[in-house]
Amino acid sequence: MNASARPSEKLHPLPSPYLLFLGDATEPAFTKTAFGLRDWIPERCVGEWACAEATVSTGLPRLTPREARARGARGLVIGVANVGGIIGERWVPLLVEALEAGLDLVSGLHAKLADVPRLATAAARCGRALIDVRVPPPNIPIATGRKRTGKRLLTVGTDCALGKKYTALALARALAARGRAVDFRATGQTGILIAGGGMPMDAVVADFEAGAAEMLSPDAAADHWDVIEGQGSLLHPAYAGVSLGLLHGSQPDVFVVCHQPGRERVLGYPDYRIPSIAETIELTALLGRRTNPAIRCAGVSLNTSHLNPIEARDLLARESGQLRLPVADPMRPGREFERLVDSCLA
Amino acid sequence: MNASARPSEKLHPLPSPYLLFLGDATEPAFTKTAFGLRDWIPERCVGEWACAEATVSTGLPRLTPREARARGARGLVIGVANVGGIIGERWVPLLVEALEAGLDLVSGLHAKLADVPRLATAAARCGRALIDVRVPPPNIPIATGRKRTGKRLLTVGTDCALGKKYTALALARALAARGRAVDFRATGQTGILIAGGGMPMDAVVADFEAGAAEMLSPDAAADHWDVIEGQGSLLHPAYAGVSLGLLHGSQPDVFVVCHQPGRERVLGYPDYRIPSIAETIELTALLGRRTNPAIRCAGVSLNTSHLNPIEARDLLARESGQLRLPVADPMRPGREFERLVDSCLA
Repeated sequence: MNASARPSEKLHPLPSPYLLFLGDATEPAFTKTAFGLRDWIPERCVGEWACAEATVSTGLPRLTPREARARGARGLVIGVANVGGIIGERWVPLLVEALEAGLDLVSGLHAKLADVPRLATAAARCGRALIDVRVPPPNIPIATGRKRTGKRLLTVGTDCALGKKYTALALARALAARGRAVDFRATGQTGILIAGGGMPMDAVVADFEAGAAEMLSPDAAADHWDVIEGQGSLLHPAYAGVSLGLLHGSQPDVFVVCHQPGRERVLGYPDYRIPSIAETIELTALLGRRTNPAIRCAGVSLNTSHLNPIEARDLLARESGQLRLPVADPMRPGREFERLVDSCLA
Repeated sequence: MNASARPSEKLHPLPSPYLLFLGDATEPAFTKTAFGLRDWIPERCVGEWACAEATVSTGLPRLTPREARARGARGLVIGVANVGGIIGERWVPLLVEALEAGLDLVSGLHAKLADVPRLATAAARCGRALIDVRVPPPNIPIATGRKRTGKRLLTVGTDCALGKKYTALALARALAARGRAVDFRATGQTGILIAGGGMPMDAVVADFEAGAAEMLSPDAAADHWDVIEGQGSLLHPAYAGVSLGLLHGSQPDVFVVCHQPGRERVLGYPDYRIPSIAETIELTALLGRRTNPAIRCAGVSLNTSHLNPIEARDLLARESGQLRLPVADPMRPGREFERLVDSCLA
């Protein structure tokens, strides 16, 4: 991440550079956190480490905790998730080894590191920290609704897991490349690990949700941009409340709708159709207006990872023509993406 | 509360009959919980008790804990709140006296009873329970979005604190009086104390908000009604996420909009206008449709406590004509309210 796009570390400083731990993963889908860190902060990832039985690799050098420490690592990040979000029994001896090598442990799992007695004991013995980034700070206020200074951009989705984080990171990087003062504001565990700080919006008590979003992007200089990672979807049957609290508290001036072409049903909710992009734009503007009457849609981010370059370009052009808005895939740099950035800044 | 409208005690059984504790209150606004219990479950309130300096009274007999115990009380309810929701230092000796007299303590404050060491010690010594109703159960699932059997009614508001709980209680009682199988489903601390169970929606972690609402009104017989107490407002700058999670998880067939005529600004948010009733109806239907496409507005509940009977009747008639919906004040029984009940059942 560009220095000027590096987030404030006031909220949640983390011990990077990281050694990425892949556990006993044999399925890349469970190591998205490690891949996210490799993709977005390679300069803060010294290598990877795993149980002997793991078959997944990020392509980074395989290092023991001692070797990683010698190369400057300060923390081992659990870059793998299993169903249930628990700390694997087979991981524990390796995590203890990392503590003994002088690394702090960092986790975004639901389970808390300190709840594993062997980790708590080893951390105390070695004088090392156990850091759970999915724990909200204790002092979140109720939202005030007061308009804050500075510019804010929020990515919103037609569903979960389709590119809101990558889109926000790409837009933050692009604004920084154009010389703007910008902070990426993370709202989920991988984003927080990438940014070194943020707010785990899904773990905040509901009454404080909008207040947590207000806390995440405080008053800033008039020309400063906060680019805020979206969560869920306003039409998600389980998570819409999270999305609405984040929208209200973020008070975005600009939003970008993220969508995966071809996904027709909400992930894990086969009875629920994915809302259209147009419907999502309209609803976001309607609800967002409450805390920022000037809210507008700057364009659309499509996740075209399943298409070849020509199919992708055709699709982006077609959708852009229909919606009369810039439509780009931030993972495919080029004219479309620059138009989307122009529109955000317009 | 009519027996058939008595809520299921599966979720959160509470030790009633109650002795209502008014602390050192000199201001009725801080004893709304005690008044709510007196108004809605007088048959479960044996009396009141307070510090010597208190000047507020519910009108119930003033009893010591020992006298209350002799008249059948099983729990002392903290019926007073102070700014900050903490347990008053001067209350503690009296609360210890209640434990010694054989009463459990029940509280809906933010502060936890067991966090006061003298209460924890006395409860352990006397073998009594300290019950905080604002603590959600530990096993709330993520919402499934699956349509449940039975009928559901949700009260929704144009703001906080204007009659959503009283409206839901009055409608539940009216449905019971018409012979319907009905449960009042409480979502806030006073409602939970009245009902003996419920879900403190504002204290649930955001990711589980809609799941908590699903848990609160489980599958029921096709002709059974759950009448669900609303929270906040979909246009509230701080609490809209709570309201949306509750709306999605409740899957209401019918909603009733609650409003206080003359209130023009959101309570505590002078920069935010109160949304109109029509706007609230439209937005609730738009968002509620996602989990129940058959959702409809049955009418409006106006809090006319500040008006005389003639002014109130004129206002109800005028609003009803404008909105083309039944409009009633549930605290003023009569033809208007019966029309609202008819419309809920239509």
